[in-house]
Amino acid sequence: MNAAHPFASHVHAQLPDWLLRELPTYNTLLPTAEERVRLTHRLAARNYKEGNGGPFAALVVDPATGELLSLGVNVVLSSGLSSVHAEVMALSLAQTRLGAWDLGSAGGRELELVVNWRPCTMCYGALIWSGVKHLLIAGEGPECEALTGFDEGPMPTHWRAELERRGIRVTSGVLREEAIAVFADYGRSGSLVYNARGTGSRRQD
Amino acid sequence: MNAAHPFASHVHAQLPDWLLRELPTYNTLLPTAEERVRLTHRLAARNYKEGNGGPFAALVVDPATGELLSLGVNVVLSSGLSSVHAEVMALSLAQTRLGAWDLGSAGGRELELVVNWRPCTMCYGALIWSGVKHLLIAGEGPECEALTGFDEGPMPTHWRAELERRGIRVTSGVLREEAIAVFADYGRSGSLVYNARGTGSRRQD
Repeated sequence: MNAAHPFASHVHAQLPDWLLRELPTYNTLLPTAEERVRLTHRLAARNYKEGNGGPFAALVVDPATGELLSLGVNVVLSSGLSSVHAEVMALSLAQTRLGAWDLGSAGGRELELVVNWRPCTMCYGALIWSGVKHLLIAGEGPECEALTGFDEGPMPTHWRAELERRGIRVTSGVLREEAIAVFADYGRSGSLVYNARGTGSRRQD
Repeated sequence: MNAAHPFASHVHAQLPDWLLRELPTYNTLLPTAEERVRLTHRLAARNYKEGNGGPFAALVVDPATGELLSLGVNVVLSSGLSSVHAEVMALSLAQTRLGAWDLGSAGGRELELVVNWRPCTMCYGALIWSGVKHLLIAGEGPECEALTGFDEGPMPTHWRAELERRGIRVTSGVLREEAIAVFADYGRSGSLVYNARGTGSRRQD
Protein backbone atom coordinates (compact mmCIF):
# COMPACT_ATOMS: atom_id res chain seq x y z
CA MET A 1 0.00 0.00 0.00
CA ASN A 2 1.43 3.30 -1.11
CA ALA A 3 0.65 5.99 1.43
CA ALA A 4 0.58 8.58 -1.35
CA HIS A 5 -2.73 7.34 -2.74
CA PRO A 6 -6.02 6.53 -1.05
CA PHE A 7 -6.65 3.11 -2.64
CA ALA A 8 -7.22 0.02 -0.54
CA SER A 9 -5.08 -2.93 -1.62
CA HIS A 10 -5.86 -5.70 0.89
CA VAL A 11 -9.05 -7.67 1.43
CA HIS A 12 -9.42 -9.25 4.84
CA ALA A 13 -12.12 -11.20 6.64
CA GLN A 14 -12.05 -13.52 9.63
CA LEU A 15 -14.18 -15.88 11.62
CA PRO A 16 -15.89 -14.39 14.70
CA ASP A 17 -14.20 -14.63 18.09
CA TRP A 18 -17.09 -16.59 19.59
CA LEU A 19 -16.68 -19.28 16.96
CA LEU A 20 -12.92 -19.47 17.44
CA ARG A 21 -13.40 -19.77 21.19
CA GLU A 22 -15.94 -22.59 20.75
CA LEU A 23 -14.09 -24.41 18.00
CA PRO A 24 -11.86 -26.54 20.26
CA THR A 25 -15.01 -28.02 21.81
CA TYR A 26 -16.56 -29.07 18.49
CA ASN A 27 -16.57 -32.60 17.25
CA THR A 28 -14.52 -32.35 14.04
CA LEU A 29 -15.38 -35.85 12.85
CA LEU A 30 -18.85 -35.71 11.32
CA PRO A 31 -19.51 -38.97 9.47
CA THR A 32 -23.24 -38.47 8.85
CA ALA A 33 -25.03 -35.83 6.79
CA GLU A 34 -27.25 -35.09 9.79
CA GLU A 35 -24.29 -34.30 12.01
CA ARG A 36 -22.87 -31.96 9.40
CA VAL A 37 -26.11 -30.10 8.74
CA ARG A 38 -26.83 -29.90 12.48
CA LEU A 39 -23.57 -28.00 13.00
CA THR A 40 -24.55 -25.45 10.31
CA HIS A 41 -27.87 -24.90 12.10
CA ARG A 42 -26.11 -24.38 15.42
CA LEU A 43 -23.69 -21.84 13.90
CA ALA A 44 -26.40 -20.06 11.89
CA ALA A 45 -28.67 -19.72 14.92
CA ARG A 46 -25.93 -18.02 16.91
CA ASN A 47 -24.30 -15.95 14.16
CA TYR A 48 -26.99 -13.30 13.75
CA LYS A 49 -27.44 -12.92 17.50
CA GLU A 50 -23.73 -12.12 17.79
CA GLY A 51 -24.12 -9.45 15.12
CA ASN A 52 -21.72 -10.88 12.55
CA GLY A 53 -24.25 -11.30 9.77
CA GLY A 54 -27.28 -13.31 8.69
CA PRO A 55 -28.41 -16.73 9.93
CA PHE A 56 -26.25 -18.72 7.54
CA ALA A 57 -23.38 -21.15 8.03
CA ALA A 58 -21.34 -23.52 5.88
CA LEU A 59 -18.71 -26.23 6.21
CA VAL A 60 -16.23 -27.99 3.96
CA VAL A 61 -16.01 -31.68 4.81
CA ASP A 62 -14.40 -34.80 3.38
CA PRO A 63 -17.50 -36.98 3.19
CA ALA A 64 -15.44 -40.17 2.83
CA THR A 65 -14.09 -39.78 6.36
CA GLY A 66 -16.34 -37.14 7.90
CA GLU A 67 -13.34 -34.88 8.55
CA LEU A 68 -14.27 -31.25 9.03
CA LEU A 69 -11.84 -29.08 7.06
CA SER A 70 -13.30 -25.59 7.48
CA LEU A 71 -16.22 -23.64 8.92
CA GLY A 72 -17.80 -20.43 7.72
CA VAL A 73 -20.49 -18.06 8.84
CA ASN A 74 -21.81 -14.90 7.22
CA VAL A 75 -19.50 -12.08 8.34
CA VAL A 76 -20.81 -9.29 6.11
CA LEU A 77 -21.46 -6.97 9.06
CA SER A 78 -18.35 -7.71 11.10
CA SER A 79 -16.04 -7.54 8.06
CA GLY A 80 -17.80 -4.75 6.16
CA LEU A 81 -17.67 -6.77 2.92
CA SER A 82 -20.80 -7.85 1.04
CA SER A 83 -19.20 -10.95 -0.52
CA VAL A 84 -18.20 -12.84 2.60
CA HIS A 85 -21.22 -15.07 2.87
CA ALA A 86 -20.89 -18.31 4.82
CA GLU A 87 -20.07 -20.37 1.73
CA VAL A 88 -17.34 -18.00 0.53
CA MET A 89 -15.78 -18.07 4.00
CA ALA A 90 -15.88 -21.88 4.31
CA LEU A 91 -14.52 -22.40 0.78
CA SER A 92 -11.79 -19.77 1.17
CA LEU A 93 -10.72 -21.11 4.56
CA ALA A 94 -10.53 -24.67 3.23
CA GLN A 95 -8.40 -23.40 0.33
CA THR A 96 -6.19 -21.48 2.76
CA ARG A 97 -5.73 -24.51 4.98
CA LEU A 98 -5.04 -26.92 2.12
CA GLY A 99 -2.96 -24.47 0.09
CA ALA A 100 -5.00 -25.06 -3.08
CA TRP A 101 -7.43 -22.75 -4.84
CA ASP A 102 -8.84 -25.86 -6.52
CA LEU A 103 -10.28 -28.11 -3.83
CA GLY A 104 -10.75 -30.78 -6.49
CA SER A 105 -6.98 -31.13 -6.66
CA ALA A 106 -6.57 -31.59 -2.90
CA GLY A 107 -5.13 -35.05 -2.47
CA GLY A 108 -7.66 -36.82 -4.63
CA ARG A 109 -10.44 -36.19 -2.13
CA GLU A 110 -13.93 -35.31 -3.34
CA LEU A 111 -14.88 -32.59 -0.89
CA GLU A 112 -18.34 -31.43 0.12
CA LEU A 113 -19.79 -28.01 0.82
CA VAL A 114 -22.48 -28.16 3.52
CA VAL A 115 -24.94 -25.24 3.91
CA ASN A 116 -28.07 -24.63 5.95
CA TRP A 117 -30.01 -23.64 2.79
CA ARG A 118 -29.60 -23.48 -0.97
CA PRO A 119 -26.83 -20.99 -1.82
CA CYS A 120 -27.65 -17.58 -3.28
CA THR A 121 -26.64 -16.71 -6.85
CA MET A 122 -23.16 -15.55 -5.84
CA CYS A 123 -22.40 -18.57 -3.68
CA TYR A 124 -23.83 -20.89 -6.33
CA GLY A 125 -21.12 -19.60 -8.66
CA ALA A 126 -18.49 -19.68 -5.90
CA LEU A 127 -19.12 -23.36 -5.23
CA ILE A 128 -18.76 -24.22 -8.93
CA TRP A 129 -15.33 -22.54 -9.13
CA SER A 130 -14.11 -23.99 -5.82
CA GLY A 131 -13.59 -27.58 -6.95
CA VAL A 132 -15.91 -29.22 -4.41
CA LYS A 133 -17.68 -32.32 -5.74
CA HIS A 134 -20.70 -32.45 -3.45
CA LEU A 135 -23.26 -29.97 -2.19
CA LEU A 136 -25.25 -30.91 0.92
CA ILE A 137 -28.06 -28.53 1.90
CA ALA A 138 -30.74 -28.69 4.56
CA GLY A 139 -33.32 -27.44 2.10
CA GLU A 140 -34.48 -25.10 -0.62
CA GLY A 141 -37.72 -23.34 -1.43
CA PRO A 142 -39.53 -20.12 -0.56
CA GLU A 143 -39.34 -20.42 3.23
CA CYS A 144 -35.96 -18.71 3.63
CA GLU A 145 -36.90 -15.58 1.71
CA ALA A 146 -40.39 -15.49 3.25
CA LEU A 147 -39.23 -15.81 6.85
CA THR A 148 -36.03 -13.74 6.74
CA GLY A 149 -36.72 -11.10 4.10
CA PHE A 150 -33.45 -11.88 2.31
CA ASP A 151 -33.24 -12.16 -1.47
CA GLU A 152 -31.62 -15.32 -2.87
CA GLY A 153 -30.95 -13.64 -6.19
CA PRO A 154 -31.81 -14.76 -9.73
CA MET A 155 -30.86 -18.42 -10.15
CA PRO A 156 -30.57 -20.26 -13.47
CA THR A 157 -33.64 -22.37 -14.20
CA HIS A 158 -31.85 -25.72 -14.15
CA TRP A 159 -29.51 -24.90 -11.29
CA ARG A 160 -29.19 -28.48 -10.04
CA ALA A 161 -28.71 -30.02 -13.50
CA GLU A 162 -25.99 -27.44 -14.19
CA LEU A 163 -24.15 -28.58 -11.07
CA GLU A 164 -24.52 -32.26 -11.93
CA ARG A 165 -23.26 -31.53 -15.46
CA ARG A 166 -20.12 -30.09 -13.88
CA GLY A 167 -19.63 -33.16 -11.69
CA ILE A 168 -21.12 -31.76 -8.48
CA ARG A 169 -23.66 -34.00 -6.79
CA VAL A 170 -26.46 -32.40 -4.77
CA THR A 171 -28.14 -33.75 -1.64
CA SER A 172 -31.06 -31.74 -0.27
CA GLY A 173 -33.63 -32.17 2.48
CA VAL A 174 -31.55 -33.04 5.56
CA LEU A 175 -32.95 -31.51 8.78
CA ARG A 176 -34.99 -29.12 6.63
CA GLU A 177 -37.52 -28.27 9.35
CA GLU A 178 -34.71 -27.34 11.71
CA ALA A 179 -33.37 -24.92 9.09
CA ILE A 180 -36.78 -23.29 8.81
CA ALA A 181 -36.99 -23.02 12.61
CA VAL A 182 -33.77 -20.96 12.62
CA PHE A 183 -35.14 -18.64 9.92
CA ALA A 184 -38.42 -18.26 11.81
CA ASP A 185 -36.54 -17.33 15.00
CA TYR A 186 -34.52 -14.82 13.00
CA GLY A 187 -37.69 -13.30 11.56
CA ARG A 188 -39.31 -13.03 14.99
CA SER A 189 -36.16 -11.55 16.54
CA GLY A 190 -36.52 -8.31 14.62
CA SER A 191 -32.80 -8.36 13.90
CA LEU A 192 -33.18 -7.51 10.23
CA VAL A 193 -29.68 -6.20 10.42
CA TYR A 194 -29.14 -6.00 6.70
CA ASN A 195 -32.10 -4.15 5.51
CA ALA A 196 -31.15 -0.90 7.14
CA ARG A 197 -32.38 0.97 4.10
CA GLY A 198 -35.58 -1.04 4.01
CA THR A 199 -34.99 -2.28 0.51
CA GLY A 200 -35.56 -5.90 1.39
CA SER A 201 -33.36 -6.73 -1.56
CA ARG A 202 -30.28 -8.10 0.11
CA ARG A 203 -29.40 -11.68 0.74
CA GLN A 204 -26.50 -12.45 2.98
CA ASP A 205 -25.98 -16.15 3.34
CA MET B 1 -6.49 -18.60 15.67
CA ASN B 2 -6.03 -21.27 18.29
CA ALA B 3 -2.75 -23.08 17.74
CA ALA B 4 -4.29 -26.26 19.16
CA HIS B 5 -6.46 -26.86 16.08
CA PRO B 6 -5.62 -26.88 12.37
CA PHE B 7 -8.46 -24.65 11.12
CA ALA B 8 -7.79 -21.52 9.12
CA SER B 9 -9.64 -18.48 10.43
CA HIS B 10 -8.49 -15.58 8.23
CA VAL B 11 -9.15 -14.90 4.56
CA HIS B 12 -6.67 -12.62 2.87
CA ALA B 13 -6.09 -11.40 -0.68
CA GLN B 14 -4.23 -8.41 -2.08
CA LEU B 15 -3.55 -6.56 -5.29
CA PRO B 16 -0.38 -7.55 -7.14
CA ASP B 17 2.83 -5.63 -6.52
CA TRP B 18 3.11 -4.55 -10.18
CA LEU B 19 -0.29 -2.89 -9.97
CA LEU B 20 0.55 -1.13 -6.71
CA ARG B 21 3.80 0.11 -8.18
CA GLU B 22 2.01 1.46 -11.28
CA LEU B 23 -0.97 2.89 -9.45
CA PRO B 24 0.56 6.29 -8.63
CA THR B 25 1.03 6.85 -12.38
CA TYR B 26 -2.61 6.13 -13.29
CA ASN B 27 -5.09 8.83 -14.08
CA THR B 28 -7.67 8.39 -11.34
CA LEU B 29 -10.21 10.72 -12.91
CA LEU B 30 -11.99 8.80 -15.66
CA PRO B 31 -15.00 10.83 -16.80
CA THR B 32 -15.85 8.78 -19.92
CA ALA B 33 -16.95 5.17 -20.22
CA GLU B 34 -14.19 4.60 -22.78
CA GLU B 35 -11.47 5.74 -20.38
CA ARG B 36 -12.80 3.43 -17.70
CA VAL B 37 -13.09 0.36 -19.91
CA ARG B 38 -9.67 1.08 -21.45
CA LEU B 39 -8.07 0.83 -18.00
CA THR B 40 -9.68 -2.59 -17.43
CA HIS B 41 -8.24 -3.79 -20.75
CA ARG B 42 -4.80 -2.53 -19.81
CA LEU B 43 -4.92 -4.28 -16.43
CA ALA B 44 -6.42 -7.50 -17.85
CA ALA B 45 -3.78 -7.71 -20.58
CA ARG B 46 -0.98 -7.53 -18.05
CA ASN B 47 -2.49 -9.57 -15.23
CA TYR B 48 -2.21 -13.03 -16.75
CA LYS B 49 1.32 -12.35 -17.98
CA GLU B 50 2.33 -11.55 -14.42
CA GLY B 51 0.88 -14.86 -13.26
CA ASN B 52 -1.73 -13.49 -10.88
CA GLY B 53 -4.76 -14.97 -12.59
CA GLY B 54 -6.88 -14.72 -15.72
CA PRO B 55 -7.19 -11.78 -18.16
CA PHE B 56 -9.87 -9.96 -16.20
CA ALA B 57 -9.99 -6.60 -14.44
CA ALA B 58 -12.61 -4.44 -12.77
CA LEU B 59 -13.02 -0.95 -11.29
CA VAL B 60 -15.45 0.81 -8.99
CA VAL B 61 -16.07 4.37 -10.16
CA ASP B 62 -18.35 7.25 -9.29
CA PRO B 63 -19.75 7.90 -12.77
CA ALA B 64 -21.05 11.35 -11.78
CA THR B 65 -17.51 12.64 -11.33
CA GLY B 66 -15.34 9.95 -12.94
CA GLU B 67 -13.52 9.35 -9.66
CA LEU B 68 -11.81 5.97 -9.51
CA LEU B 69 -12.49 4.40 -6.11
CA SER B 70 -10.94 0.95 -6.45
CA LEU B 71 -9.25 -1.41 -8.89
CA GLY B 72 -9.31 -5.19 -9.03
CA VAL B 73 -7.71 -7.95 -11.04
CA ASN B 74 -8.17 -11.68 -10.85
CA VAL B 75 -5.78 -12.92 -8.13
CA VAL B 76 -6.90 -16.54 -7.91
CA LEU B 77 -3.41 -17.89 -8.53
CA SER B 78 -1.44 -15.43 -6.42
CA SER B 79 -3.88 -15.62 -3.49
CA GLY B 80 -4.77 -19.32 -3.74
CA LEU B 81 -8.48 -18.53 -3.43
CA SER B 82 -11.00 -19.37 -6.16
CA SER B 83 -13.42 -16.55 -5.28
CA VAL B 84 -11.15 -13.54 -5.74
CA HIS B 85 -12.15 -12.67 -9.27
CA ALA B 86 -11.53 -9.12 -10.47
CA GLU B 87 -15.07 -7.98 -9.57
CA VAL B 88 -14.92 -9.38 -6.03
CA MET B 89 -11.57 -7.63 -5.50
CA ALA B 90 -12.76 -4.26 -6.86
CA LEU B 91 -16.02 -4.38 -4.89
CA SER B 92 -14.32 -5.51 -1.66
CA LEU B 93 -11.59 -2.89 -1.96
CA ALA B 94 -14.15 -0.13 -2.56
CA GLN B 95 -16.06 -1.33 0.51
CA THR B 96 -12.85 -1.40 2.54
CA ARG B 97 -11.91 2.11 1.44
CA LEU B 98 -15.37 3.57 2.05
CA GLY B 99 -16.04 1.62 5.23
CA ALA B 100 -19.40 0.35 3.98
CA TRP B 101 -20.45 -3.14 2.93
CA ASP B 102 -23.35 -1.49 1.07
CA LEU B 103 -21.90 0.76 -1.61
CA GLY B 104 -25.41 2.09 -2.21
CA SER B 105 -25.24 3.77 1.18
CA ALA B 106 -21.93 5.50 0.45
CA GLY B 107 -22.69 9.19 0.59
CA GLY B 108 -25.66 9.09 -1.74
CA ARG B 109 -23.46 8.26 -4.71
CA GLU B 110 -24.65 5.78 -7.33
CA LEU B 111 -21.47 3.82 -7.97
CA GLU B 112 -20.54 1.80 -11.04
CA LEU B 113 -18.77 -1.52 -11.48
CA VAL B 114 -16.68 -1.57 -14.66
CA VAL B 115 -15.52 -4.92 -16.11
CA ASN B 116 -13.81 -6.02 -19.30
CA TRP B 117 -16.55 -8.61 -19.97
CA ARG B 118 -19.90 -9.76 -18.61
CA PRO B 119 -19.39 -11.13 -15.06
CA CYS B 120 -19.51 -14.87 -14.40
CA THR B 121 -22.32 -16.34 -12.29
CA MET B 122 -20.53 -15.72 -9.00
CA CYS B 123 -19.61 -12.12 -9.79
CA TYR B 124 -23.10 -11.47 -11.13
CA GLY B 125 -24.41 -12.28 -7.67
CA ALA B 126 -21.60 -10.35 -5.98
CA LEU B 127 -22.46 -7.18 -7.87
CA ILE B 128 -26.13 -7.44 -6.87
CA TRP B 129 -25.25 -7.68 -3.17
CA SER B 130 -22.64 -4.91 -3.35
CA GLY B 131 -24.95 -1.93 -3.68
CA VAL B 132 -23.55 -0.61 -6.98
CA LYS B 133 -26.15 0.99 -9.25
CA HIS B 134 -24.48 0.68 -12.63
CA LEU B 135 -22.70 -2.08 -14.51
CA LEU B 136 -20.46 -1.04 -17.41
CA ILE B 137 -19.00 -3.88 -19.49
CA ALA B 138 -16.96 -3.93 -22.67
CA GLY B 139 -19.05 -6.77 -24.02
CA GLU B 140 -20.78 -10.09 -23.65
CA GLY B 141 -21.26 -13.12 -25.86
CA PRO B 142 -19.45 -16.34 -26.75
CA GLU B 143 -16.07 -14.82 -27.63
CA CYS B 144 -14.63 -14.88 -24.11
CA GLU B 145 -15.32 -18.57 -23.51
CA ALA B 146 -14.31 -19.50 -27.06
CA LEU B 147 -10.99 -17.65 -27.00
CA THR B 148 -9.90 -18.27 -23.41
CA GLY B 149 -11.40 -21.67 -22.55
CA PHE B 150 -12.94 -20.29 -19.36
CA ASP B 151 -16.47 -21.14 -18.29
CA GLU B 152 -18.76 -18.22 -17.43
CA GLY B 153 -21.09 -20.44 -15.44
CA PRO B 154 -24.85 -20.90 -15.68
CA MET B 155 -26.52 -17.48 -15.86
CA PRO B 156 -30.21 -16.80 -15.32
CA THR B 157 -32.07 -16.37 -18.60
CA HIS B 158 -33.07 -12.77 -18.02
CA TRP B 159 -29.86 -11.69 -16.35
CA ARG B 160 -30.06 -8.07 -17.49
CA ALA B 161 -33.74 -7.62 -16.64
CA GLU B 162 -33.07 -9.04 -13.18
CA LEU B 163 -30.41 -6.38 -12.64
CA GLU B 164 -32.66 -3.58 -13.90
CA ARG B 165 -35.46 -4.83 -11.63
CA ARG B 166 -33.06 -4.39 -8.69
CA GLY B 167 -32.18 -0.86 -9.75
CA ILE B 168 -28.88 -1.65 -11.50
CA ARG B 169 -28.50 -0.15 -14.97
CA VAL B 170 -26.39 -1.98 -17.55
CA THR B 171 -24.24 -0.47 -20.29
CA SER B 172 -22.58 -2.91 -22.68
CA GLY B 173 -20.53 -2.65 -25.87
CA VAL B 174 -17.79 -0.14 -25.02
CA LEU B 175 -14.43 -1.00 -26.63
CA ARG B 176 -15.74 -4.53 -27.21
CA GLU B 177 -13.25 -5.39 -29.95
CA GLU B 178 -10.38 -4.37 -27.69
CA ALA B 179 -11.70 -6.81 -25.04
CA ILE B 180 -11.73 -9.60 -27.59
CA ALA B 181 -8.18 -8.74 -28.64
CA VAL B 182 -6.99 -9.31 -25.05
CA PHE B 183 -8.75 -12.68 -24.91
CA ALA B 184 -7.28 -13.67 -28.28
CA ASP B 185 -3.78 -12.77 -27.06
CA TYR B 186 -4.39 -14.80 -23.93
CA GLY B 187 -5.52 -17.79 -25.99
CA ARG B 188 -2.48 -17.55 -28.25
CA SER B 189 -0.09 -17.19 -25.31
CA GLY B 190 -0.70 -20.76 -24.17
CA SER B 191 -0.92 -19.54 -20.59
CA LEU B 192 -4.01 -21.56 -19.75
CA VAL B 193 -2.93 -21.27 -16.19
CA TYR B 194 -6.18 -22.42 -14.67
CA ASN B 195 -6.94 -25.52 -16.54
CA ALA B 196 -4.08 -27.47 -15.07
CA ARG B 197 -6.28 -30.53 -14.86
CA GLY B 198 -7.53 -30.03 -18.39
CA THR B 199 -11.14 -29.84 -17.34
CA GLY B 200 -11.79 -26.62 -19.20
CA SER B 201 -14.51 -25.99 -16.69
CA ARG B 202 -13.14 -23.08 -14.71
CA ARG B 203 -13.78 -19.43 -15.15
CA GLN B 204 -11.66 -16.97 -13.27
CA ASP B 205 -12.62 -13.46 -14.08
